[in-house]
Amino acid sequence: MTEQPSSVANQNNPPTLLDGIMTTRALRRLSTTPIPEDVLWEILAAGQQGPSGGNIQPWQFLVVRDEATRRGLGEIYSRTYARYEKAMLAVAPPQRPENEASWQRTLAASRHLAQHFGESPAIIAIAMADISMELTDEYGPLDVGTAFASAYPAVQNLILAARHHGVGTALTTVYRIEHDAVRDCLSIPKTHQVIALLPLGYPLGKFGVAKRRPVETVTHWDSWGNKRAR
Amino acid sequence: MTEQPSSVANQNNPPTLLDGIMTTRALRRLSTTPIPEDVLWEILAAGQQGPSGGNIQPWQFLVVRDEATRRGLGEIYSRTYARYEKAMLAVAPPQRPENEASWQRTLAASRHLAQHFGESPAIIAIAMADISMELTDEYGPLDVGTAFASAYPAVQNLILAARHHGVGTALTTVYRIEHDAVRDCLSIPKTHQVIALLPLGYPLGKFGVAKRRPVETVTHWDSWGNKRAR
Repeated sequence: MTEQPSSVANQNNPPTLLDGIMTTRALRRLSTTPIPEDVLWEILAAGQQGPSGGNIQPWQFLVVRDEATRRGLGEIYSRTYARYEKAMLAVAPPQRPENEASWQRTLAASRHLAQHFGESPAIIAIAMADISMELTDEYGPLDVGTAFASAYPAVQNLILAARHHGVGTALTTVYRIEHDAVRDCLSIPKTHQVIALLPLGYPLGKFGVAKRRPVETVTHWDSWGNKRAR
Repeated sequence: MTEQPSSVANQNNPPTLLDGIMTTRALRRLSTTPIPEDVLWEILAAGQQGPSGGNIQPWQFLVVRDEATRRGLGEIYSRTYARYEKAMLAVAPPQRPENEASWQRTLAASRHLAQHFGESPAIIAIAMADISMELTDEYGPLDVGTAFASAYPAVQNLILAARHHGVGTALTTVYRIEHDAVRDCLSIPKTHQVIALLPLGYPLGKFGVAKRRPVETVTHWDSWGNKRAR
C-alpha cells in the first residue's frame, strides 16, 4: 500500500477499494480550488448506494457551494467548535507521552478547519428524515435497530468516494450544538435532522493510514475476550 | 463500470475504490466455503480505519466461526426475522407495479438469509461501548452528535473491504429484537451493545449496483428544495 501524494496522481491512478479504505484519513486542511460538478455528482451517487433497512434510503443531500451560505455555515461551525473544544479539553484525560505529538497535530488541524470551514469549496449536509424504525407485534414493540444504521454507512460512502477523486474531508458533528441554526441556514425543515456536515476540498496534506489501535486488540474470536495475535 | 461476476475474477482484478462502492449491494445467498483468516484480518483492519469523534474508536469486533455459536446466532436471527417480517408486512405500503418484482426478489433473499444465517462461514458482530458523546459547558449540555456516527462508518468499511475480497454480506439489525440473547450467546458484557451482525460468505449471486432512487431526486443545491438535473 502506498500513500497517494496528491490529488493529481490519485486521479490518474485511482486506488483499489481496499487501499482506498485504508488510506482515507480525516483531512482538515483543504484548498479553495473548486470541485467539478461531475465529481460532486459521482460522490453523491456513491452515497446513494449506502445500505438501509428495508431500502428506505432516509437521507437527503444538500450541497452548498454558494459563498454566503458557506460563510454562514462556517460561522456556526467556528462557534460550536470553540464550545466543543473547551468542554472536551476540560474532561480529556492526559495523553500518553508517545501520543502527545499526534494529539497536538490533530488539535491544530481541527482548529484550522474551524477557522476555514466556510472556505471549503463545497460542503455536503446529510439530512435524515425523523423516522422511527420501531415496529409492533402482538407481543409489543420491536426494536429492530436505530435509523442511524441506515444513514451513516451512506455518509462513509461519500467520504470514500471523495477520496477516490482526490478530495479530502472530515466527518463533522459539532455543529449539532446549534442544530436549529444549521437547519435555518439551509432551509431544512424540522422533519429532518442534519446528521453530518462534510467540508470537501482538495487536501493540502496527504492521504494516508490514520492512527488507530492495533486491530488485534479490538478483535475477539467466537466469544468475548478471546483475542489472538494477527 | 462492470459487474464482478465471481469472487475469483474479483480477487484477480480488485475494483477501484469508486467501482467497489458502486457495486456493493447486499448479498444474502452465501456459500459455506470458509474465508481465509488473512482475508478476515484485512477486512477487520479496514473497519478499524473508520472515523470517530475525537478518535475514540468505540467499536469492538467479534468474529464467529465456531459452528455451535453460529448455529445459536442463526436461531436468534431466524426467530427475530420472522417477527420483523410479519410486523413489517402488516404496515408496508403496497409496492408500485414497476417495483413489485424487485420487492419479491429482496423478500425471497431475506427469507433465505433468515433460514441460513448460521451457515455463513463467518459472522462479525460489531459491539459499541455504551458511551455518551454529551459534553457540558457553563451554558448547559452540548449535543455534539450521536455515538452511532462514530461506529456505523466502520461497519460500512467492513462491508466494502469484504467486497474487495469477493466476500458478500448484508448489514443486519433485526436480531435487536432479542438483543440480550445475542449478547449472552457471545458473552458480550452489558457495557456494550451490538449494533450490527454481518454474515459473511462468498456470494452465490453477483455483486452489482443496488436499486436506489435517482440521486438527483435526493440532492438539493445551496438551499432545501433547490434540485436540478444531473
